[in-house]
Amino acid sequence: MTPEQQLALIKRGTEEIIPEAELLAKLKEGRPLRVKAGFDPTAPDLHLGHTVLINKLRLFQELGHEVIFLIGDFTGMIGDPTGKNVTRKPLTAEQVAENAKSYRDQVFKILDPLKTRVVFNSEWMSQKSAADMIHLAGQYTVTRMLERDDFSKRFANEQSIAIHEFLYPLLQGFDSVELKADVELGGTDQKFNLLMGRTLQGRYGQPAQVCITLPILEGLDGVQKMSKSLGNYIGVNDAPGEMYQKILSMPDSLIPRYFELLSFRTQEDAEALLNEMAAGRNPQQLKKLLATEIIARFHGEEAAAHAHKSAGNVIGYGEIPENVPEVTIDLEGQSELPISAVLNKAGLVKNSAAARDVLQRQAVFVDGSVVSADYRCQRGVSYIVQAGKKAIARVCVV
Amino acid sequence: MTPEQQLALIKRGTEEIIPEAELLAKLKEGRPLRVKAGFDPTAPDLHLGHTVLINKLRLFQELGHEVIFLIGDFTGMIGDPTGKNVTRKPLTAEQVAENAKSYRDQVFKILDPLKTRVVFNSEWMSQKSAADMIHLAGQYTVTRMLERDDFSKRFANEQSIAIHEFLYPLLQGFDSVELKADVELGGTDQKFNLLMGRTLQGRYGQPAQVCITLPILEGLDGVQKMSKSLGNYIGVNDAPGEMYQKILSMPDSLIPRYFELLSFRTQEDAEALLNEMAAGRNPQQLKKLLATEIIARFHGEEAAAHAHKSAGNVIGYGEIPENVPEVTIDLEGQSELPISAVLNKAGLVKNSAAARDVLQRQAVFVDGSVVSADYRCQRGVSYIVQAGKKAIARVCVV
Repeated sequence: MTPEQQLALIKRGTEEIIPEAELLAKLKEGRPLRVKAGFDPTAPDLHLGHTVLINKLRLFQELGHEVIFLIGDFTGMIGDPTGKNVTRKPLTAEQVAENAKSYRDQVFKILDPLKTRVVFNSEWMSQKSAADMIHLAGQYTVTRMLERDDFSKRFANEQSIAIHEFLYPLLQGFDSVELKADVELGGTDQKFNLLMGRTLQGRYGQPAQVCITLPILEGLDGVQKMSKSLGNYIGVNDAPGEMYQKILSMPDSLIPRYFELLSFRTQEDAEALLNEMAAGRNPQQLKKLLATEIIARFHGEEAAAHAHKSAGNVIGYGEIPENVPEVTIDLEGQSELPISAVLNKAGLVKNSAAARDVLQRQAVFVDGSVVSADYRCQRGVSYIVQAGKKAIARVCVV
Repeated sequence: MTPEQQLALIKRGTEEIIPEAELLAKLKEGRPLRVKAGFDPTAPDLHLGHTVLINKLRLFQELGHEVIFLIGDFTGMIGDPTGKNVTRKPLTAEQVAENAKSYRDQVFKILDPLKTRVVFNSEWMSQKSAADMIHLAGQYTVTRMLERDDFSKRFANEQSIAIHEFLYPLLQGFDSVELKADVELGGTDQKFNLLMGRTLQGRYGQPAQVCITLPILEGLDGVQKMSKSLGNYIGVNDAPGEMYQKILSMPDSLIPRYFELLSFRTQEDAEALLNEMAAGRNPQQLKKLLATEIIARFHGEEAAAHAHKSAGNVIGYGEIPENVPEVTIDLEGQSELPISAVLNKAGLVKNSAAARDVLQRQAVFVDGSVVSADYRCQRGVSYIVQAGKKAIARVCVV
């Protein structure tokens, strides 16, 4: 693949490449590039939001480059020196090792373990002296550090910033020096820290790394960033049925974004599917394709094939639990029936008023998609019909 | 001596004792206090300005306390990590040892070597890790650090502050933790750093040190602080004649200040002399007493007795070189003669116009003091009269 072709693949779905020309130049060198990404040692519970970046690392691996998966355990083992943040207790070496194992288990479902170098920055940082730290701190100014978004806001709001917090971006940057990174990847919120690596490499007489920022993935609500604390996430350790259910129930508006950032389909394939959806194809079908792909990635092909069966232990997400009761309704010669009548005949609602009500609440799903009152079922077809959170049936229309 | 009496002696000539009540409480404990003062390892060329503090340390020694003379070599051996200040090259261990020897030679003319513990902060700081440094940096906030005078000015003026500069006051404060200092002395410009020691001792679970600030001594110009670069200093290694000459030529207005901060006379003695001066005693006599005391301190009694003879190798400071030509002038029965006529008769000026000129320039000294045109010499007295930088004579008026 030519450097230009590599660049095009790398660029897909990124926020910024700083600077793109340097990345192209490095790709033209024809050697495996050292591609660094740093991870917090305290939160090894990855969700799909984290995998946006890991997917890009995987691409670098496929293109023949060396991925350095850096676990930033050094500062984690220090904890919070101010003593104010009681939840940030120092991690022990055992906890770090345990978290690292958990990381590996999770990311090696995406990354090729043979092409991944897992490193811990305590390897070099615990050897460094106070004098080294002072030397490092001399490489940057207070004013420029205060330009970092969160610092500038806190400073302006007179919220306290402990001085050691100024050292952490320097440490992250120094990791790039230590690793002689060619490229560093991070979320858009990491841009300042990635650029710090670039600056410090220059100060320490190295070629500067290219910084690639990746967008923050929206969570299942389609608005806020995916985050465990907001509850709008899909964990990479979520059960197949749970993944299936969450993906099938997300807003249709997220489909293009998730295809771009989470699918390994080629850009051409993804665009073709999205075009089909624009032309009328049921969005649930695209969600199913996405769910199948993602479940296969984390749980294997077989789990992906059966995920829909175990989805919906809590129904209400428009998907099919196991042991759905089967009901046959007879149209008595008619070719179709409005959904409200189907709900009634199948015994999924008590009466016509309840049928109208549940339809108005957008709580009627047919084959996993919300339907409105004008939806009609056809004779000779079998549907999974769900009314509200508890009533579901496989309805055979004869 | 009671704690209250000790306190009174300690308080003399200090700027602030923070807090005084704590110092009294510590004195009441009846044990030898650990009294710390820190010195820069790069500038061992002490002048009398530095001795204001050393004199106070000596008092603590006389009161039975332990003086810790700290040489801050740790940061000196780092140099300037920004690389901008080319004059701040890292010191080698050899240079530090050499400078320390020079310090000892100079301060042990004031301090009792047997009661002085000389320590180097590299002893403990070179053992500290980057993690220790981060922990230390966590003990203080950016906002509070920016309250330090020089930082706040530079920040306001958008002059750059490298981040390591924020670490230096923390290191100085940490020295107090390491030494478990009871008291730290410093110039008024050190107040922030002294208080940092107090803060950090609290953070590290120690009783907080009392901070004593001492005024900055004015230099020989009577206005600016004594400093080598301003040329208004008396070095402790200055030759006896040079010391003599400099002290005798200083403005009279400095006499009370120098007695307070440099003389070891009791307060009562010093006040008695100053009262005599106020009542008309020639200020030069007080200067001579001061010069004799100070020269004896640094060069011994004999040198002090002879210093006036070797003073004035460069005349112009109103003092007496050796081999001054002697001139006798005859008043021919008059009891006194204006100085302008004396200059003329003694051949110290070419003519009356030159006499007026040199008097107007305030360049006529009689016995080391500037005199104005209305000064009159008395029959039967011998004067050292100097006109400008080169003309000098012992004038016997008969």
